[in-house]
Amino acid sequence: MVMCLRLPSLTSSLFSPATTNSLRLSPAFLRRWRGRYHLQPPSPLLASASFSSQRTTATETSNEDRADGNSKSRLNNNSDRVITPLSQDFNAWYLDVIANAELADYGPVRGTMVIRPYGYAIWEAIQEYLNVKFKETGHSNMYFPQFIPYSFIEKEASHVEGFTPELAIVTIGGGKELEEKLVVRPTSETIVNHMFTQWIHSYRDLPLMVNQWANVTRWEMRTKPFVRTLEFLWQEGHTAHATPEEAENEAIQMINLYTKFAYEQAAIPVIAGRKSRVETFAGASKTYTIEAMMGDRKALQAGTSHNLGQNFSRAFGTQFTDENGQRQLVWQTSWAISTRFIGGIIMTHGDDAGLMLPPRVAPIQVVIIPIWKKDEDKPGVLNAASSVKEVLQTAGVKVKLDDSDQRTPGWKFNFWEMKGVPLRIEIGPRDVASNSVVISRRDVPGKQGKVFGISMEPPILEPYVKDKLDEIQSSLLRRATSFRDSNIVDVSSYDELKIAISKGKWARGPWSASDEDELKVKEETGATIRCFPFEQPQGIKVCLMTGNPAEEVAIFAKSY
Amino acid sequence: MVMCLRLPSLTSSLFSPATTNSLRLSPAFLRRWRGRYHLQPPSPLLASASFSSQRTTATETSNEDRADGNSKSRLNNNSDRVITPLSQDFNAWYLDVIANAELADYGPVRGTMVIRPYGYAIWEAIQEYLNVKFKETGHSNMYFPQFIPYSFIEKEASHVEGFTPELAIVTIGGGKELEEKLVVRPTSETIVNHMFTQWIHSYRDLPLMVNQWANVTRWEMRTKPFVRTLEFLWQEGHTAHATPEEAENEAIQMINLYTKFAYEQAAIPVIAGRKSRVETFAGASKTYTIEAMMGDRKALQAGTSHNLGQNFSRAFGTQFTDENGQRQLVWQTSWAISTRFIGGIIMTHGDDAGLMLPPRVAPIQVVIIPIWKKDEDKPGVLNAASSVKEVLQTAGVKVKLDDSDQRTPGWKFNFWEMKGVPLRIEIGPRDVASNSVVISRRDVPGKQGKVFGISMEPPILEPYVKDKLDEIQSSLLRRATSFRDSNIVDVSSYDELKIAISKGKWARGPWSASDEDELKVKEETGATIRCFPFEQPQGIKVCLMTGNPAEEVAIFAKSY
Repeated sequence: MVMCLRLPSLTSSLFSPATTNSLRLSPAFLRRWRGRYHLQPPSPLLASASFSSQRTTATETSNEDRADGNSKSRLNNNSDRVITPLSQDFNAWYLDVIANAELADYGPVRGTMVIRPYGYAIWEAIQEYLNVKFKETGHSNMYFPQFIPYSFIEKEASHVEGFTPELAIVTIGGGKELEEKLVVRPTSETIVNHMFTQWIHSYRDLPLMVNQWANVTRWEMRTKPFVRTLEFLWQEGHTAHATPEEAENEAIQMINLYTKFAYEQAAIPVIAGRKSRVETFAGASKTYTIEAMMGDRKALQAGTSHNLGQNFSRAFGTQFTDENGQRQLVWQTSWAISTRFIGGIIMTHGDDAGLMLPPRVAPIQVVIIPIWKKDEDKPGVLNAASSVKEVLQTAGVKVKLDDSDQRTPGWKFNFWEMKGVPLRIEIGPRDVASNSVVISRRDVPGKQGKVFGISMEPPILEPYVKDKLDEIQSSLLRRATSFRDSNIVDVSSYDELKIAISKGKWARGPWSASDEDELKVKEETGATIRCFPFEQPQGIKVCLMTGNPAEEVAIFAKSY
Repeated sequence: MVMCLRLPSLTSSLFSPATTNSLRLSPAFLRRWRGRYHLQPPSPLLASASFSSQRTTATETSNEDRADGNSKSRLNNNSDRVITPLSQDFNAWYLDVIANAELADYGPVRGTMVIRPYGYAIWEAIQEYLNVKFKETGHSNMYFPQFIPYSFIEKEASHVEGFTPELAIVTIGGGKELEEKLVVRPTSETIVNHMFTQWIHSYRDLPLMVNQWANVTRWEMRTKPFVRTLEFLWQEGHTAHATPEEAENEAIQMINLYTKFAYEQAAIPVIAGRKSRVETFAGASKTYTIEAMMGDRKALQAGTSHNLGQNFSRAFGTQFTDENGQRQLVWQTSWAISTRFIGGIIMTHGDDAGLMLPPRVAPIQVVIIPIWKKDEDKPGVLNAASSVKEVLQTAGVKVKLDDSDQRTPGWKFNFWEMKGVPLRIEIGPRDVASNSVVISRRDVPGKQGKVFGISMEPPILEPYVKDKLDEIQSSLLRRATSFRDSNIVDVSSYDELKIAISKGKWARGPWSASDEDELKVKEETGATIRCFPFEQPQGIKVCLMTGNPAEEVAIFAKSY
């Protein structure tokens, strides 16, 4: 089986075990791996059903309440709570959060997902940041067709039958059986190279650096909203260079950009590093990855950048004439981040109350809740709330005023906490009288996170809110980093590794053993090498498996 | 056949003749129409071949020149000119411009298109404008899956066989024949309504106003880059309302927004109006359209907004509980603009020299060409050019400095003219000495469009350039408006209409005749009613066909 199609895949753990970095895997290995794959319990089907139809979603709750004229929310009532506690069942919690916060819903076709406005707005925040950075680093957006002739895949894959289970195939077009079947793109390296051969002629056409924002389709058997869906959205960058050094620099530049994005925007302290040979996507010379620790301590591969070497240019004949008039194959990279990242944000920061969003990717950074009991207080409170909204909006803060009559303030508190809004501003009659507001942090529960008497005056309120948002952003990163670090165990033997993994932790230890040893670890513990981190400890290293000298430590973990 | 699937279609002329605004067309009519459709000559195949492989593209030219060490451009040499003159063969000119300006290329699958960075940047300009406006008018972006169960289509279409020729169908997924075939979305009304039924419960959930930026697939037989491709990019808005008035207001609001966009950003003086019953998309109560006159005087339907009434909510049971506790069907709209619009920009403004872009949608608004002969002049000239670039960039102007050594200034002049860049700044040693630049307008050829001695000083240069760009923007709109108006003939009889159409013009005249009469006009002249324009002349009107009183004038034209 040729793995090259999924080079920028974000779902490595299920697909990546390649015994070499060449383009081929033995059919025997594949059968074994596929076999294991299909032995997985059909839990996602159950989850799917409960997610889309059996569970009570927030919307449904609202409408029942409304129909009942019951303004007291079920969310206020712990016994009625619709979000499964995180500690009780992480997967159920995850699906509950997605449903209740209206991030996504299941589509009518198994394994597909509708990204709802609140979830899509997180994707837009990701896009806005990355799109600017891609352009700053010299990439242009463009668009390649999603239908790829089946022969392109075959060109890449002599063991195409190993791949077929992953493909959606169009066989009928315009009412007729097609002469050549069309693959709905699972990734675009093949079609990109087909086009590159037409555009690249001389060294002056290099580097060629493009990106596309697109949908891709992979026929996954086990699906999970955002993390692994039949169709997902991503960006895929594709570049061609004249020298291997340039391609390597590009691959490193892009994984560094992803790392910076994860830390600074998503407050996710990913560990960046190089994949092992076994985990390197076949077709790539090197795969770089960012690995994030989720709330259940499983690893999520959150972005990858591949140095493809000349593997694709060789398969497609992507050549250029160098300065000496010689024809040469180009050196290439590809790199991707997908809507999976949204799953990473949910599973990094969320808590029992629901979603918790880092301010820089939050669709709503501040929610204003006006509070009144007597009708005579209402106009003053709403008036003050509107001016506060105006002030913050003008200052560039993403702010929402929830002034609906339908809900109690308490219901609204819980609702917007569940939606992960970083900061809440409460304004009641007494606040109006004292020209001040109450501000509560989503990340610090209860009274500890609540500050009274912040002046409504713009010169005071605006910087206060912005500072608080920055503080929350830092605090989320700090908390996630501390959680991550307290769950990584340094190990110096295989026994220690096994204990760490069995406790659900990540194991970090020196590694210079064989690919077979690595596969044995996976077989026996369920953990894989997530990466050889770029940041390596100093000192002499001894392989935890063999006792031989080792150059690097590796990180082992179970993963999504 | 049910036409509802193509409600927001931008390709009405080929598909729209519906005899009623109900959901059904007679099979006999369909057969007739399909029959005619397939009788079209297979010219696009030829065009396709010549576009992607036989014609010499600009890139190829460049590289040949480079390989020859021939710095004198072929574009400088009229006998070698690769762009067919517009007046000689409009279609060949169009394909040449697209190839030479590197806007797009054919994909490997017939009828698909690769949108290259320069073309995609125009799409990004369109997106940036519309996306902001959509949000300002209360719409949220989201994403629906592209795979639609075939049964959804059947639910809508008892005459589904009439539609099948338009669909790409996935029959294999995960290596297996699928139990239910999946349609690759040609538009999303069906899946949108399927989801809306799950999200809409009470009047408080309305209006629900969403939009998605997505790819769509229609298995077109006759394709043309941008104008009609097998896969294209678009935005599709979908809204649900509690009352018919709200839906009507929304449909009107969105066609007005498209009109404003066309005039103010794309400098295209579209005529906005209502489609005739025959041309209204079945499934819509009313279809509003913007119709643009291309350089060959054919009409291009450049955007549509549909008041869908309750047709889809009836088919899918999309209901809400009103304030009195009664269940009611929602009222809906949908509206779309696609990458077809880029074709409209090319065919509205281009001339024999190539593309001509309105500054507000131009990826590059100003190109700076440094000019030197003696090596000693080079540093001074490049230095001045860089500071000018810096000044303009800081001022928010999209500017490119073409400082390559590979080409003569003359070649660069022609190249960037062909790419449609609105303004060129030339800087030579004498300009450096006098601290000034030479500025040339793309829309005013030769010396007339050239101004010498504009000071390089930022306080002078920056407003000068911005004013010039505004002037060009207005000038392009003025020119297109005058072209449009001089090619619309007021007619008061069918004979006058026939003469106008036979001269390639648009005919405008009072119309209150039957659908059969309208189809007769199409049959006999090839022209269709493009719209009943919103702007109607005053006075008594007599139907050009029947002599009966008429309420409105209609515009007839041949169209893409």
